[in-house]
Amino acid sequence: MAGSTFGNIFKISTWGESHGEALGVVIDGCPAGLKLEAKDIQDFLNRRKPGTSKFTTPRKEDDEVSILSGIFEGKTTGCPISLVVFNKQQRSADYSEIASYYRPGHADYTFDMKYGFRDYRGGGRSSGRETIGRVAAGAIAIKILESLGIKIDAYAKEIGGVSIDYNNFDLKEREKNPFNMPDSKAASEVEELASKKRAEGDSLGGVIECQIKGVMPGIGETVFDKLDARLAQAIMSIGACKGFEIGKGFEVASMFGSTNNDAFSIKDGKITKGTNNAGGILGGMSDGSDIIFRAAFKPTPSISKMQNTVNKSNEEIEVSIKGRHDPLVVPRAVVVVEAMAALSLVDLIFTNMTARMDKIVDFYKN
Amino acid sequence: MAGSTFGNIFKISTWGESHGEALGVVIDGCPAGLKLEAKDIQDFLNRRKPGTSKFTTPRKEDDEVSILSGIFEGKTTGCPISLVVFNKQQRSADYSEIASYYRPGHADYTFDMKYGFRDYRGGGRSSGRETIGRVAAGAIAIKILESLGIKIDAYAKEIGGVSIDYNNFDLKEREKNPFNMPDSKAASEVEELASKKRAEGDSLGGVIECQIKGVMPGIGETVFDKLDARLAQAIMSIGACKGFEIGKGFEVASMFGSTNNDAFSIKDGKITKGTNNAGGILGGMSDGSDIIFRAAFKPTPSISKMQNTVNKSNEEIEVSIKGRHDPLVVPRAVVVVEAMAALSLVDLIFTNMTARMDKIVDFYKN
Amino acid sequence: MAGSTFGNIFKISTWGESHGEALGVVIDGCPAGLKLEAKDIQDFLNRRKPGTSKFTTPRKEDDEVSILSGIFEGKTTGCPISLVVFNKQQRSADYSEIASYYRPGHADYTFDMKYGFRDYRGGGRSSGRETIGRVAAGAIAIKILESLGIKIDAYAKEIGGVSIDYNNFDLKEREKNPFNMPDSKAASEVEELASKKRAEGDSLGGVIECQIKGVMPGIGETVFDKLDARLAQAIMSIGACKGFEIGKGFEVASMFGSTNNDAFSIKDGKITKGTNNAGGILGGMSDGSDIIFRAAFKPTPSISKMQNTVNKSNEEIEVSIKGRHDPLVVPRAVVVVEAMAALSLVDLIFTNMTARMDKIVDFYKN
Amino acid sequence: MAGSTFGNIFKISTWGESHGEALGVVIDGCPAGLKLEAKDIQDFLNRRKPGTSKFTTPRKEDDEVSILSGIFEGKTTGCPISLVVFNKQQRSADYSEIASYYRPGHADYTFDMKYGFRDYRGGGRSSGRETIGRVAAGAIAIKILESLGIKIDAYAKEIGGVSIDYNNFDLKEREKNPFNMPDSKAASEVEELASKKRAEGDSLGGVIECQIKGVMPGIGETVFDKLDARLAQAIMSIGACKGFEIGKGFEVASMFGSTNNDAFSIKDGKITKGTNNAGGILGGMSDGSDIIFRAAFKPTPSISKMQNTVNKSNEEIEVSIKGRHDPLVVPRAVVVVEAMAALSLVDLIFTNMTARMDKIVDFYKN
Repeated sequence: MAGSTFGNIFKISTWGESHGEALGVVIDGCPAGLKLEAKDIQDFLNRRKPGTSKFTTPRKEDDEVSILSGIFEGKTTGCPISLVVFNKQQRSADYSEIASYYRPGHADYTFDMKYGFRDYRGGGRSSGRETIGRVAAGAIAIKILESLGIKIDAYAKEIGGVSIDYNNFDLKEREKNPFNMPDSKAASEVEELASKKRAEGDSLGGVIECQIKGVMPGIGETVFDKLDARLAQAIMSIGACKGFEIGKGFEVASMFGSTNNDAFSIKDGKITKGTNNAGGILGGMSDGSDIIFRAAFKPTPSISKMQNTVNKSNEEIEVSIKGRHDPLVVPRAVVVVEAMAALSLVDLIFTNMTARMDKIVDFYKN
Repeated sequence: MAGSTFGNIFKISTWGESHGEALGVVIDGCPAGLKLEAKDIQDFLNRRKPGTSKFTTPRKEDDEVSILSGIFEGKTTGCPISLVVFNKQQRSADYSEIASYYRPGHADYTFDMKYGFRDYRGGGRSSGRETIGRVAAGAIAIKILESLGIKIDAYAKEIGGVSIDYNNFDLKEREKNPFNMPDSKAASEVEELASKKRAEGDSLGGVIECQIKGVMPGIGETVFDKLDARLAQAIMSIGACKGFEIGKGFEVASMFGSTNNDAFSIKDGKITKGTNNAGGILGGMSDGSDIIFRAAFKPTPSISKMQNTVNKSNEEIEVSIKGRHDPLVVPRAVVVVEAMAALSLVDLIFTNMTARMDKIVDFYKN
Repeated sequence: MAGSTFGNIFKISTWGESHGEALGVVIDGCPAGLKLEAKDIQDFLNRRKPGTSKFTTPRKEDDEVSILSGIFEGKTTGCPISLVVFNKQQRSADYSEIASYYRPGHADYTFDMKYGFRDYRGGGRSSGRETIGRVAAGAIAIKILESLGIKIDAYAKEIGGVSIDYNNFDLKEREKNPFNMPDSKAASEVEELASKKRAEGDSLGGVIECQIKGVMPGIGETVFDKLDARLAQAIMSIGACKGFEIGKGFEVASMFGSTNNDAFSIKDGKITKGTNNAGGILGGMSDGSDIIFRAAFKPTPSISKMQNTVNKSNEEIEVSIKGRHDPLVVPRAVVVVEAMAALSLVDLIFTNMTARMDKIVDFYKN
Repeated sequence: MAGSTFGNIFKISTWGESHGEALGVVIDGCPAGLKLEAKDIQDFLNRRKPGTSKFTTPRKEDDEVSILSGIFEGKTTGCPISLVVFNKQQRSADYSEIASYYRPGHADYTFDMKYGFRDYRGGGRSSGRETIGRVAAGAIAIKILESLGIKIDAYAKEIGGVSIDYNNFDLKEREKNPFNMPDSKAASEVEELASKKRAEGDSLGGVIECQIKGVMPGIGETVFDKLDARLAQAIMSIGACKGFEIGKGFEVASMFGSTNNDAFSIKDGKITKGTNNAGGILGGMSDGSDIIFRAAFKPTPSISKMQNTVNKSNEEIEVSIKGRHDPLVVPRAVVVVEAMAALSLVDLIFTNMTARMDKIVDFYKN
């Protein structure tokens, strides 16, 4: 189990390396009858595509997806969907030097420890390009969620210490700046900071926030497969992610029961909650409120600033990482967060269909 | 899939409700030849047992474990191990009233939404007693880790906003105060605050930190089953946990590549890292440094302070939660965190045994 | 993964040894709202209980089941159901001798090879008593199937070479003879043969046939998780089972396309098949006809007739197996076959609920 | 879960339809350091390639495999291996007619029942071409087994009622006739019969036998994941397979304990068995003897002989199936049987590495 498979019912298997032939994903368990064309997936891949601003790697890749199976006359057939993106600009030469030493903050050392050697070209499997398969599969999961009235939106909440102001919050701003920030003012500040850090050969981290609207109550299993637990695995499995929190998250540690509990009330005849400190999840199950979570991303480890490290001959050396790197990973990770959230959620929505015997009997009666 | 099963190779299935006959766990995949007796497990259950201080529920339970299978002449046989703890003080009467309404911060509402009804006695499956199975199985996982030279220690880092001072850090202090805090001074402050909040009928949250020493490098899979991702699911699946972070965690968001990257260096001829901002994990695999993570726990939702909520007739009401509740969940959750960390880790250590073809060939040659 | 877990969505974990404290099973994934009491399960356990005729082991066991979790007010809650049967007549002394040698046809040798030692008391985990957990869980699966209008019936088709005559076929006869044969005449012949073989200290094998009526079309997945493939694993996992076939089974090898294909026709306006050589499954999915399969069981390996074998000191010896053994396993295995068929089928019926997007949307609309 | 994923540790996901763009497989969990090039896989695909004799479909396909990921400098990296074969001769026109009716013996009807519609081109996912992914992945599994000294050989034991004579048995003959029969005389008889049946527009079934040599004792788990049970699922999941048996198989039903039990004896100081009725498996675990199993395959359902069936307007019609079909499936299924056996076995060999605590400790000490 190399661990490139995710999901129990809506199951995906991603594959591919930064500088290999291609990258892709197989989705096993997509229901039949979903309208799907390459464009649906391409739109999402375009959101993570490199080369769209000076703050992303200058590597040029079209990241054009092909659907190789599982579709017939514009609809999914219920059989596995195979998606592939061929690499074009895999200039391996750029990376030959790094074969000999361990880049700080990267998986070079741990790959060697685990497997005895590594595909050192551009990070191999631990490159950011690994997320192509996640985003392609996630695009399908998001289409499924849309059919169920569910909408996922992630955005940069904080970059390099600059946070959005919720008074300025406007999701539409997100696409207008290179940082996926829903606050134009914060985005301007980040632009200045990022330009400066980029010039210094340094990089920035940040926080991505994600809101999910329209989830019916009761999704998530009660013990190990709680919705928030599965979201946590999904999001923490994104390279560079170092923290995950739901609702008030770490803030709850210093709150009291009386200030943290969300009181139930009646609104328009329906049960609702006045506050949403829980982030839309109670006992691991969705409660009908918006689901809100955040993920912390570390600064890109590849920096041209001089760093100390060791080589494979166990010598201490100084290095400056060359190559085509993003000075910050957060903007392009936003769509990856949406994809992973969708993949977790679809799996648990499907799982939930067998929660009640009466509904199973009804299902098969019709 | 009700989601009470965890792990792929070292697999556990927990079961049982707060006020049912018993609670327990089946472990499928424990290797043969591990010395094991009830006492090994009992020691861990005693650490989560209620009634040990005025800051835990006064419910009296011995939580005495019986081993029903999988052991022969003092050693595990490789067959499933069934562990059971019978409930003694299941005073269901205490809980009859709550059947009619939804307690804020609890899973009452979501259980009803998911399953159509619920076992309302003491929270049923979403009670803290659900963790008995986790801790019992975790005790075995911890024994396995010990055989491999790995040591897990969790402790309360912060309660009700009072944090430990690392200058006073002393793991041995942990057992000497009712809060599992490795700093006697902080523990005293917490005692004062907790007494006050308890008197007010309120409750406190906190942060548990966990350190794991001695993990060989290379443990964890490279994409979805990263060690930190699996730890995240494991820990976030504990009731009341609202956040998880590894190494510097959320702090990395405002750090730069140059300040966050851990430089490799040579010490005594071996590759090591000067700092450990990564928390012992690079690219989802252990790097040989200590693994350090933190989890945020919300205040116990059961408080006697008056709260607003709704009943099942869709009426808004005011409630004061009676019954035997812990004013803070953190102290007793410490051992649950250790258990879940051990369960995740053992599973990935076992998974890692098939990472290299040469080692597989060697294994079967001998 | 010791492999005592079965199913993906309706998941069971069995545990327990012949001469341990108890045996049981945890069912994770049973839908909420199913009426269930101990009697429902006991009825099935009674069908596999020893000591009911001179052709079964004289070991006396009540095999009384207790439900320890997952039921509230007479209905399943959606949480794990833990079932336990305590052993009463575990006379380990009977078995002490066999610790030193390897019984032919038994798992003694392979257990030692795999695990380094074994629980030699009564076969430990490879005893027929291991099936208690299967039957207990299967009883619940059968209840679920009944709610969906599906009926499973297995019976002895052949014992010791004596086969039933389908002209005499009467399911009601099954309970009237100690062999579970739906043909009283064949049962009489078997009685004579079995008495003779028993007197000789020998044992008999046989074939169990199983018919499943009322399965809606489309159950089973299209590649590896075909309904017949999953049934095959389920049935072949029963100790002593050496062959599995569906429909015409091995007979198809000498048939031709023109004689084997089942022609579709219209009956009462509905699509049906005139013959059922396929045994109710086409392309791995149920086709709405009766599902018919057969399983071959070897003669009980424990015989008092003298046999050659080796002991743990690598010496060739002669042995006569003493103890309380069934001279034939087929009659008591009938209910185990029903249980395993039900467990496979329920899992795939649940899986099938996510086959079509339109039905998923409908499910959540209501 | 569309069920195109197989294996727990050595996990494969196959995809692709007969007349889609391509077919392929992703292998997740292949150990690092295995020498692998396209030729290793191509050799196996060539064995199942169509158009090699007049007894296989005249469809011309090179079935040329490309490795898209998971290999670096000629060795597996431990990351997912993606294999793809592009379709060339997908003449969909051939199949347009069959869209309107249900072919007897095919999955047309059940696909429609399950998914609401189907990719009717050439059987879509239930075409024999689906096995390309299995064989490609199986080729890698077989390479792994070879590293461990294990050899798998399958062959046609019986076709159209004509069985091999074990006195003439010669594995080298297998490649010399178009039927994969290890007996030239039987092959000649089959040639005559098959030519006749082909001329009549009819088809033949048969039995494939498989022997596995060199499996170390103790492989297989003790309850549901017995080696024979997993082999049964694997083999029965091959389209057209209707029966599976191990060792003496269905013959055991009429044997007695005294004639069926394999006596242990000592040979060259080692424990061995004089007979092998068990087919190399005791209690679900390999016993060190050769593993021998058989699988029954039905005659190809596509025949040009006139058949009765129904169309989608619920009318009874007569049809003659045109198109490019094999008159018998057995010869080309031989390599698929080897592939599936290898996939099951590798998975359980990997699983077995965590059976004993002492061996785990040793593994990590080195």
